[in-house]
Amino acid sequence: MAEHTIIMQTTLQKLLEEKKYSTLRDILVTMKPADIAAIFDEMEAARLPLLYRLLPKELAADTFVEMEPEAQELLIRGFSDAELKDVLDELFVDDAVDIIEEMPATVVRRILAQAAPEMRTSINEILRYPENSAGSIMTTEYVSLSPTLTVAEAITRIRRTGIDKETIYTCYVIRNRVLVGVVTVKDLLLAPDDDAMIESMMSANVIAVNTHDDQEEVAQMFSKYDFMALPVVDAENRLVGIITFDDAMDVMEEEATEDIEKMAAIIPSEKPYMSMTPFEIWKNRIPWLMLLMVSATFTGLIISRFESALEKLVILTAFIPMLMDTAGNSGSQASVTIIRGLSLNEIEFSDILLIIWKEVRVAVLCGLSLGIACFGKILLVDFLIMDSFAGVSSPFLIIGVICITLSITVLFAKIVGCTLPLFAKKLGFDPAVMASPFITTIVDALSLLVYFGVASAFLPI
Amino acid sequence: MAEHTIIMQTTLQKLLEEKKYSTLRDILVTMKPADIAAIFDEMEAARLPLLYRLLPKELAADTFVEMEPEAQELLIRGFSDAELKDVLDELFVDDAVDIIEEMPATVVRRILAQAAPEMRTSINEILRYPENSAGSIMTTEYVSLSPTLTVAEAITRIRRTGIDKETIYTCYVIRNRVLVGVVTVKDLLLAPDDDAMIESMMSANVIAVNTHDDQEEVAQMFSKYDFMALPVVDAENRLVGIITFDDAMDVMEEEATEDIEKMAAIIPSEKPYMSMTPFEIWKNRIPWLMLLMVSATFTGLIISRFESALEKLVILTAFIPMLMDTAGNSGSQASVTIIRGLSLNEIEFSDILLIIWKEVRVAVLCGLSLGIACFGKILLVDFLIMDSFAGVSSPFLIIGVICITLSITVLFAKIVGCTLPLFAKKLGFDPAVMASPFITTIVDALSLLVYFGVASAFLPI
Repeated sequence: MAEHTIIMQTTLQKLLEEKKYSTLRDILVTMKPADIAAIFDEMEAARLPLLYRLLPKELAADTFVEMEPEAQELLIRGFSDAELKDVLDELFVDDAVDIIEEMPATVVRRILAQAAPEMRTSINEILRYPENSAGSIMTTEYVSLSPTLTVAEAITRIRRTGIDKETIYTCYVIRNRVLVGVVTVKDLLLAPDDDAMIESMMSANVIAVNTHDDQEEVAQMFSKYDFMALPVVDAENRLVGIITFDDAMDVMEEEATEDIEKMAAIIPSEKPYMSMTPFEIWKNRIPWLMLLMVSATFTGLIISRFESALEKLVILTAFIPMLMDTAGNSGSQASVTIIRGLSLNEIEFSDILLIIWKEVRVAVLCGLSLGIACFGKILLVDFLIMDSFAGVSSPFLIIGVICITLSITVLFAKIVGCTLPLFAKKLGFDPAVMASPFITTIVDALSLLVYFGVASAFLPI
Repeated sequence: MAEHTIIMQTTLQKLLEEKKYSTLRDILVTMKPADIAAIFDEMEAARLPLLYRLLPKELAADTFVEMEPEAQELLIRGFSDAELKDVLDELFVDDAVDIIEEMPATVVRRILAQAAPEMRTSINEILRYPENSAGSIMTTEYVSLSPTLTVAEAITRIRRTGIDKETIYTCYVIRNRVLVGVVTVKDLLLAPDDDAMIESMMSANVIAVNTHDDQEEVAQMFSKYDFMALPVVDAENRLVGIITFDDAMDVMEEEATEDIEKMAAIIPSEKPYMSMTPFEIWKNRIPWLMLLMVSATFTGLIISRFESALEKLVILTAFIPMLMDTAGNSGSQASVTIIRGLSLNEIEFSDILLIIWKEVRVAVLCGLSLGIACFGKILLVDFLIMDSFAGVSSPFLIIGVICITLSITVLFAKIVGCTLPLFAKKLGFDPAVMASPFITTIVDALSLLVYFGVASAFLPI
């Protein structure tokens, strides 16, 4: 919670205690719904209904939409049927759906009972679409125009029907419910001829999404084409709703968070961190931790196999963490770059050869520079300053083995790191799980194998 | 590059070879600028100018904006002065600035020479603002209204001046250049009274950003308030430009990519991966690899100090990678969660005690479940199946030491993981660098210390 929110909350609380309701109201009406909601979310439950009722109707509904589900539920439970109806009448359909999705069944039944029949139908329609589909995030409140209207008639229609539409700026031209074109309010206002037919000036080359398209693809289309709204059509190209840019922004943010969580071996959750219980957080974190712990068995087995070698030259053990970490970091750099490129549609599976060739060259550069730097560092720090090689015969050969291993594992790590996400994508898995933790586990085993292989070849073990 | 882009490119190439220019043009005009640009970017350099000249003027400019800098430069070098002027006249100022920022000085001089005087002034003004500031991403083309206009007069003004504004839908009300309110075209169109004064219906409670505000904060405001455009003011509250939602979306995407890259120990770059040379990629990846490699010296030193202990019980070595990786993964889960929360303004430094208390409880749950699972796994796999403990006295004590170490390091890792990003933020550093690789390095050392500490306490070493 931002600091100014805390200050504001203290002021409001004091005014509330002193029952200065009109001052309170004067302050609240100058604020934006999102800011009021942030303060309300932190208020004591008992004070919330009183404070909420100070807001004028429209501001109240806009604030309601921005609040956390817990506070929304609390308010709904306190509303009379008439109050609930008032709020619902002010809501856009997609916002109502968002709220319903978070409420328990009893509250949902009350909401549906109080919603206007038309809204109830729309809500039920949107709720039918699978989660994360275009249909589930669309709204059914848009401006539709007939192709045979004139510009002047279209403007009149917008002025008459626009009041409860989520956006009036992009208007959809439909013939028998089929989407045939779009025209913007800018086009209409700037049209030189008020009597021109919509048909003659609309853009017939419409980009639309299907109700079942994935919301991530939809968000990508917004960022690619800079649309303000995108029409959603069914299999017969009939217009069923629109998605507005603000919902696309939410999806973009949500999907980026999901990717980041998956890359850190967390099962994504839509709930914000601060409102999750430790048990919920544990449930999202433990599966990957378990899996990765068990798969570390391989590294253990590799070390066990070379136990006798290590007994002869314990100094080799000291460099295992450095070799594994550097390889792991090199691998995750490559994998994370590719995962992000895939998410943003900048990279396709067909680029795989180009990518491998590029990563090989990067790996050679990284491997050589790391190998040389590592040689210098071990010579200076471990050999000269710390004297870690005391009593070891042929120390330079050992240092050489370590640095050669480092260069080779960096090469392997980069190749594994860049190819795994691509194959995951190709096979229909989420590439984001092929990030650091997963790559690290594979690369750990690889680097140990290389280490003991190189050591066996050059050292008397 | 998407598959359909490749197909389309082949078709266009064939038509170009056969000199079927009118067919080519017919195809291109049905396409969206972003899609045409994607194809053009992949075209042979020699064919590009010819293909580009087939586009109608407005579509040509819109496509130009969407192309990669390399292709843009190539085209500009081939343009006559008149052609360059035509393109510039169609561009929005902010897009022109984006292009200029990528061009070499000679090309920039030509662009500025051909730009209309008014545009040149605006470009120079925007170029003055620091990179990543609100001023640097704004456009100076907006609709401004005087507070004393009537609704009808305002609509007339918009119809007359709106043609080359980036958005007409949010209009800014200014008095002596100072921003005093906003009014939307929706408000104007739906106003019941055409003679009402703008002053009486505008929203005087305007949220604006300062020219020097960070672009990341600006993008966060868009996602919080669902704005279509946000005004940019100077220190005296004079309106100097606006930022539109599509630019905010680009910033959101860019900032998420930057955070992801930093979390993977990569120095962020604005250039897409596929157009970077291996040397450029190397330059962005090697600094962190070097730093992390050198800091792994600590883990090496810790192991060296316990060399004699390891010589006596080499079996302990086999579990070092598993302990380090599990601790590293636990730590990055916490750090990445906090870093993302900070980016989205869901978490503040003042929440630190709440967060630590939450992470401690999560860590106890994770530590216990991992410890128990690890005991079972070692017993089954390493002890019974692989017989790795052959010849070792008191194997159960050793297994116990490993599992207790695991539980303790998970606790440490979660605490380090959640606090470091918060302190980084507090001290004005970027929290994103406190992600996996950095945490891993610290947690590696910690887990070795705990391991050898617990082992020394319970085992005869």
